Amino acid sequence: MRIEPRLLKGFRDFLPSQEAVRKTLIRRLEDSFASFGFEPIDTPILEYTDVLLGKGGGETDKQVYRFTDHGSRDVAMRFDLTVPFARFMALHRNELYLPFKRFHVNKVFRGENTQRGRYREFTQCDFDIVGTDSVSADLEIITMIHHSFEVLGVPGVSIHVSHRGVFNRLLQRHGVAERSEEVLRTVDKIRKIGRDRTLAELSEMVTADTAAEILQFVEATGSMSEVIDTMERLLGEPAPETAHLRTIADALTALGLADRIVIDPSITRGLDYYTGVVFETFLDGIEAIGSVCSGGRYDDLVSLYSKESMPGVGASIGLDRLIAALEELDAAVTAPHSADVLITMQDPGLLTHYHALAATLREAGIRCEVYPDARKLGQQFAFAERKGIPLALICGESERAAGTVNLRILGDRTSLDGLGTDAAVARILAIVGGSA
Amino acid sequence: MRIEPRLLKGFRDFLPSQEAVRKTLIRRLEDSFASFGFEPIDTPILEYTDVLLGKGGGETDKQVYRFTDHGSRDVAMRFDLTVPFARFMALHRNELYLPFKRFHVNKVFRGENTQRGRYREFTQCDFDIVGTDSVSADLEIITMIHHSFEVLGVPGVSIHVSHRGVFNRLLQRHGVAERSEEVLRTVDKIRKIGRDRTLAELSEMVTADTAAEILQFVEATGSMSEVIDTMERLLGEPAPETAHLRTIADALTALGLADRIVIDPSITRGLDYYTGVVFETFLDGIEAIGSVCSGGRYDDLVSLYSKESMPGVGASIGLDRLIAALEELDAAVTAPHSADVLITMQDPGLLTHYHALAATLREAGIRCEVYPDARKLGQQFAFAERKGIPLALICGESERAAGTVNLRILGDRTSLDGLGTDAAVARILAIVGGSA
Repeated sequence: MRIEPRLLKGFRDFLPSQEAVRKTLIRRLEDSFASFGFEPIDTPILEYTDVLLGKGGGETDKQVYRFTDHGSRDVAMRFDLTVPFARFMALHRNELYLPFKRFHVNKVFRGENTQRGRYREFTQCDFDIVGTDSVSADLEIITMIHHSFEVLGVPGVSIHVSHRGVFNRLLQRHGVAERSEEVLRTVDKIRKIGRDRTLAELSEMVTADTAAEILQFVEATGSMSEVIDTMERLLGEPAPETAHLRTIADALTALGLADRIVIDPSITRGLDYYTGVVFETFLDGIEAIGSVCSGGRYDDLVSLYSKESMPGVGASIGLDRLIAALEELDAAVTAPHSADVLITMQDPGLLTHYHALAATLREAGIRCEVYPDARKLGQQFAFAERKGIPLALICGESERAAGTVNLRILGDRTSLDGLGTDAAVARILAIVGGSA
Repeated sequence: MRIEPRLLKGFRDFLPSQEAVRKTLIRRLEDSFASFGFEPIDTPILEYTDVLLGKGGGETDKQVYRFTDHGSRDVAMRFDLTVPFARFMALHRNELYLPFKRFHVNKVFRGENTQRGRYREFTQCDFDIVGTDSVSADLEIITMIHHSFEVLGVPGVSIHVSHRGVFNRLLQRHGVAERSEEVLRTVDKIRKIGRDRTLAELSEMVTADTAAEILQFVEATGSMSEVIDTMERLLGEPAPETAHLRTIADALTALGLADRIVIDPSITRGLDYYTGVVFETFLDGIEAIGSVCSGGRYDDLVSLYSKESMPGVGASIGLDRLIAALEELDAAVTAPHSADVLITMQDPGLLTHYHALAATLREAGIRCEVYPDARKLGQQFAFAERKGIPLALICGESERAAGTVNLRILGDRTSLDGLGTDAAVARILAIVGGSA
């Protein structure tokens, strides 16, 4: 009995055209991270459930793929790369040096409602600097985000930066520090629910005056230093956290990034986890899609597993959302075509000659393949076009005897006949150049 | 309450030194595959259990991580990359062209007994050509295996090739074709259990004469053409399958690979699945570790899911075993050091200057990072050495004012002082050269 070849809802295959783009994006991101001294790590997809979930039972927990394994262990598939990183740092503290900079690009799993266009298996690109609370580390993360989107060829990107400590001071000043969690969560939704509903929701938590001032705070706009001025005015005085933001703003300005950075007090990152700078990244023209790279500074990564305290700063790119955004911008990264040259099979008796030609081309850095069957040339050309191969070599017995090949440029259906091997290699390199 | 940061048995973390090597190996393999026109795909880690296991209940099935998901679906984690590829081809047949050449490098999961040094999460690198039964495809897979180990820098590799059809003919000639499965399984173990036990086991299945002749067959040695001669002698006549092997042998000889290929009739690849050429790959000096790349030709990839027939040829590299083998050979691939230069922090007031220097270096293709805290220089150098960074830049207020930096070569504890930025970039590139 045959089985229907089907996929689970929320899970995807990646065809070559898609997977080649993903791999190209990931390589560029990894090379960008490495150029800042970040190093790769990996962790298991499966871990003990208590290690991943702690003792909690929150909203995330319900989405976790959790089961009992052959050895009656309670296990779960990782749902993010942050929790495994914390466990990793607690376990390997003595094998590592601080500050430690890692990146981790891999899949995570959440049994989310797929109706909202979410996937249940998706790829995250996380990067963090842990073991230092230096402003230099905050600055480095922000410049690395900028650099990474630049090497991806993204046309325009804005990194919105704020500081949780500034917000907390504002709430303290108004005597509503104990409501901070719900206030932050409400403010975090302002882009989604709009100004009026945010104000209405805030007014149910705090006095109308306080709500108005919170809104004034989160809506502050202007140059980086103007917004920091507004923050200080609303706080009544400068604070260490505004000074910290000012140091970052001045450095980013001196580095020529002023037009790419926005000090945006509405950025709060809902989670309790963050304690210092927080940031989100928007692509020009499609801000509505939301942040494609978010993160911030936290006081303590490993407290669930260790009594050691370990501050850090980091961010995460959701690869799937990024690809969707790039497609919407028509800025999708294009992968190199699959091979540069198809060596057609004219005569099965020349099998060895074709493979020897292929070896010569490859030696010169040309990606090529031998068509395996002696079909009509038109069929072999059609195959090459279908696969996105731009060139074909044709060689029959008379060409082999003469030591030549004919080079077919499939795009414009022209041919260069009777080329010696060296001439053919030179021609091919001139045509495909960059891709080899 | 704290949670002990622990891993499941058979699952591993990869620290930067390990993960950088894995990523380097994978990139080289993927680039090798791409240079032969192979294209990347990916499939989900989680699939419907019946899609992965069919209706069977064999030995593998017991090792599969299988559970019921939130939607009461019977799901399983993939245990190899072959079954998902078959399902992929059946599902996407109309979006693809044949012959289709794919590679797939990713993790698979088996709840195996870890006492034999096996892991429960491990990485496979699979590559296949499907949709053709051409000898050219067989030849291409074998030359690609050779090329791939060459780009990995493996000192010596032997690819052992045979043909299942030749073996089947021998068994038919002796009238024991119906015992072929058990005979093949026994012969497959000859390296492990030795000649005498193999002969003894065979003698329980077939007559002593037949057993002796089977052993004569599998022990045939000599040049490729000598072994094919022996095969034909034992078959009593040439056969299409020996002619096929001879075509491959002649082509490989003409391609200069004769000293790397062994026609080895003892290679049978236990599985029923294979129908044509079969091959295993051994590293010189550590043959005992077993094959690091195995595969062969099969008649039908997709029969479980489709009535279409789809022949193919492919092989798989076990990345973990390969890395263990390379370590044993002291031929381990070394990853590039984590960054080329550490820009030390002498004076926190120069924060922006340090990050501007970093941007300039990065622009020139130099991987660098700014040390985030103004610690003693000795501590910053020690950090660089710990992380494998070969160079450090030192710049205080007087150097900044003079527009210079001091370059420290950490390995030999020498310094080049008072370099202008351009001179420093040139020096650094001259020293780290290849890695950038």
